[in-house]
Amino acid sequence: MTKPELPTKADFPVHRRHQTRWADNDVYGHVNNVVYYAWFDTAVNGWLMEAAGCDIRDLPAIGVVAETSCKYLAEVSFPDELSIGLALEHSGRSSVIYKLAVFKVVDGVVEDTPRALGRFVHVYVDSDARTPVPIPEQVATALEQLR
Amino acid sequence: MTKPELPTKADFPVHRRHQTRWADNDVYGHVNNVVYYAWFDTAVNGWLMEAAGCDIRDLPAIGVVAETSCKYLAEVSFPDELSIGLALEHSGRSSVIYKLAVFKVVDGVVEDTPRALGRFVHVYVDSDARTPVPIPEQVATALEQLR
Amino acid sequence: MTKPELPTKADFPVHRRHQTRWADNDVYGHVNNVVYYAWFDTAVNGWLMEAAGCDIRDLPAIGVVAETSCKYLAEVSFPDELSIGLALEHSGRSSVIYKLAVFKVVDGVVEDTPRALGRFVHVYVDSDARTPVPIPEQVATALEQLR
Amino acid sequence: MTKPELPTKADFPVHRRHQTRWADNDVYGHVNNVVYYAWFDTAVNGWLMEAAGCDIRDLPAIGVVAETSCKYLAEVSFPDELSIGLALEHSGRSSVIYKLAVFKVVDGVVEDTPRALGRFVHVYVDSDARTPVPIPEQVATALEQLR
Repeated sequence: MTKPELPTKADFPVHRRHQTRWADNDVYGHVNNVVYYAWFDTAVNGWLMEAAGCDIRDLPAIGVVAETSCKYLAEVSFPDELSIGLALEHSGRSSVIYKLAVFKVVDGVVEDTPRALGRFVHVYVDSDARTPVPIPEQVATALEQLR
Repeated sequence: MTKPELPTKADFPVHRRHQTRWADNDVYGHVNNVVYYAWFDTAVNGWLMEAAGCDIRDLPAIGVVAETSCKYLAEVSFPDELSIGLALEHSGRSSVIYKLAVFKVVDGVVEDTPRALGRFVHVYVDSDARTPVPIPEQVATALEQLR
Repeated sequence: MTKPELPTKADFPVHRRHQTRWADNDVYGHVNNVVYYAWFDTAVNGWLMEAAGCDIRDLPAIGVVAETSCKYLAEVSFPDELSIGLALEHSGRSSVIYKLAVFKVVDGVVEDTPRALGRFVHVYVDSDARTPVPIPEQVATALEQLR
Repeated sequence: MTKPELPTKADFPVHRRHQTRWADNDVYGHVNNVVYYAWFDTAVNGWLMEAAGCDIRDLPAIGVVAETSCKYLAEVSFPDELSIGLALEHSGRSSVIYKLAVFKVVDGVVEDTPRALGRFVHVYVDSDARTPVPIPEQVATALEQLR
């Protein structure tokens, strides 16, 4: 049996530079597992706000997070600079599944092999009633850039 | 096709009370998805330190996190009180897989239905070389309490 | 010149139990300085929500934080249990100054000597216009309990 | 009585660009007061690691935080880009006091007026005994760049 090949940086149409913070490191001297999700969260929402051209928090439908996961492949540590890769796994009527990856940036160059791989599921809900609604048009249009 | 039944609080042999913090809430008024992993992390390591009867950070083999995931089923919000359920999915030579669940505590009573379900994989590595080693005996003995 | 005497637990009319989290610890093995402010934030707002008998986030005037400070006297570390002391330094027309202290709980008993001392200034603003307004009556009444 | 004039960006010899994260925002739609201290922490330690030319965490003397404070003057919010200003207030035998400021970056230009002003006190201690020791030579040399 052969191991599945890892995706590389070329598999992610969008990359966003991201900094580590001193407090990200834990007692073992590397970034705590929890923090990766703050990076994913920031990459998805930050990209969406730019790509959709509006403040997504003010839309009548907001993306609530239904599921997340992360595989930690190799450690990163403050003060590493990172590039967070973003790709589209699937988009449906009300939900979007993003693939994410954490790459380390060394001397200004993004490494080919990811340090971590993630998955992030947004379900769009009415911002008041919190019941599923179709993906807002601004978001759907933005997602085209990830195909 | 029927939906798989959710586990309930009785499916988790260990429960640990946990508080929310003001800063856990995000702009949408509920706890941010990232924070659940801080709860899982705290439940696993806090329980291990009690059950193993030693400071697990000082053992020659330490548990590094290889994979985590979470399904968010219903929101929680500061100042909710929580009970984090802990169960053993699998333990091998070097790794342990925990099942986790977030239950809300209402008027002192833990709800039956989880608000979130998680998975947390620890791989034991030599604390210096960071290469996989067998699960320390103190941890293996502690894990018996989760069966 | 003599050192000013430290306040002790008896100087804080309100005490709130608080847990540390695994991720609170930093690379030096004790709680990172940043985290104390999350405890202060939680103690002030959590107490206010109970003492005011309403969800303070929904009031037309909200407390925004104008100034905070902390002196770190002795370290605490996960999995320490804490008691956060809360006292009133001053309340004016639009602002409230709280004194805070972090005490370690050892075998269920709150230590007399604080591990950290803090200060936390809330200014009440209109939740839309964000301009200073008088302290809401519910909050003013709650503050009486801290005198 | 006149208000003391605020320092401006020119008063800070070192500036470090810093990103906000999605989870930095709180329920009121701006960055939570706690997070500013994570920025200060990151600016001080990140700058020190570059300016001292070594991993300060491995020196026999480490800087533990003895006191911090922050005045919040005007809000910032994700996805704002920031510039954290760093200046030296005082350095003694064992301790260093930094002045910090948070500036918002608008269209690539750092604003003149700070959004927040901070103070951060490091005391150097022996990394094992945790008793005060002189500032390490590498750090003392780095601090010259802040005068």
